[in-house]
Amino acid sequence: MRKKAIVLLSGGLDSATCLAVARRDGFECHTLSFDYGQRHRCELTASEHVAAAGGSVEHRVFKLDLNQWGGSALTDPAIPVPKTGVTGEIPVTYVPARNLVFLSIAAAWGEVLDAHDIFIGVNSVDYSGYPDCRAPFIRAFAEAARLGTCAADENWQWQIHTPLQHLSKAEIITLGNRLGVDYSLTTSCYDPDTLGRSCGRCDSCRLRHAGFVEAGLPDPTLYFFSQEKK
Amino acid sequence: MRKKAIVLLSGGLDSATCLAVARRDGFECHTLSFDYGQRHRCELTASEHVAAAGGSVEHRVFKLDLNQWGGSALTDPAIPVPKTGVTGEIPVTYVPARNLVFLSIAAAWGEVLDAHDIFIGVNSVDYSGYPDCRAPFIRAFAEAARLGTCAADENWQWQIHTPLQHLSKAEIITLGNRLGVDYSLTTSCYDPDTLGRSCGRCDSCRLRHAGFVEAGLPDPTLYFFSQEKK
Repeated sequence: MRKKAIVLLSGGLDSATCLAVARRDGFECHTLSFDYGQRHRCELTASEHVAAAGGSVEHRVFKLDLNQWGGSALTDPAIPVPKTGVTGEIPVTYVPARNLVFLSIAAAWGEVLDAHDIFIGVNSVDYSGYPDCRAPFIRAFAEAARLGTCAADENWQWQIHTPLQHLSKAEIITLGNRLGVDYSLTTSCYDPDTLGRSCGRCDSCRLRHAGFVEAGLPDPTLYFFSQEKK
Repeated sequence: MRKKAIVLLSGGLDSATCLAVARRDGFECHTLSFDYGQRHRCELTASEHVAAAGGSVEHRVFKLDLNQWGGSALTDPAIPVPKTGVTGEIPVTYVPARNLVFLSIAAAWGEVLDAHDIFIGVNSVDYSGYPDCRAPFIRAFAEAARLGTCAADENWQWQIHTPLQHLSKAEIITLGNRLGVDYSLTTSCYDPDTLGRSCGRCDSCRLRHAGFVEAGLPDPTLYFFSQEKK
């Protein structure tokens, strides 16, 4: 019997690659996406397609009302998504404690499934300043999860796999391309139009497009190219 | 301006006492309850009453579909609530990773409110074997939360207050009684009837009732005394 893993899927390029890596490593993959009131709803549809194409044995969407208190440009319509380029600081697109919440819920499902491996596509190279994407957080989370679940009494460890942690966007795309990921199914834009097309100007679009250029591969993304701050 | 705290409220005796301690310690209290598909729904009504009586400036109920995957007698109608007394092992009433999930969501709200203090009524004396109620978990969580939120960049710490950690149920009741907690508003039963009355036989009812007896105070709980395994 194959070992079970939970793979967090955002509908984006990174988590689609993560799923391909988990499959390559022999895991039976159970995928999990979050409906947390994000303004880019098309990522939930993208997640379903990525799960199906990537061989997930079970895909779940967990509803979570994180937009009830706002605090991020991704969940609060009153805060505009920045289009002026990546800075070194924590940007307004940071969703408070998002990966802490997502990983905790993954651990809850993992306990029920008896899956002790969780894959998450965090990255510290092109990550634009989110604290919950860094390796020290992931290590500390694994320890908190061990102590706060049956793992503490049953003497096992949570393995939080972050295969993309130290890869550039171009390296991620090259890896996924080799593993057969269909990136045309994925969406990365923080501020897509109603058709699900990408703005081409937010941090996430800029990083994605530059990655395809650097990897020397065609970018399959549909852009509408928003005109603000060109 | 008073310092803000988030206080987790379950509708039970412990968290009501926790709120009274947080208020005694001078915090402006924002209370948070979870609608996670628990079979004892009357605890949500109890939480509202406890919040109002305990001086919460804002009470939120966060909906969370933890019963979608079952795994606990408290969320899965297929698993009966045990009525035979407390054992040393992790009981079937354990909800996988519950406090990990609850604290993570409290941290998310805390970041938005600029509240860096969280009160949770966990206890290691009468706690009936839940790993997520132990002090090492709470410490590890505070560190994971620090590294996974703005605290990492802004150089502050999360304070997870567990004022009941080392108190017996009788000591908790004595403390709350001194601080004016109205325990008739609280409910502890894992398996109440449709009127919200307590079964008197589950682990939680047994611990609660014994606490009042030991504290020498009248137990204001309405019991219907379930007849199984008397």
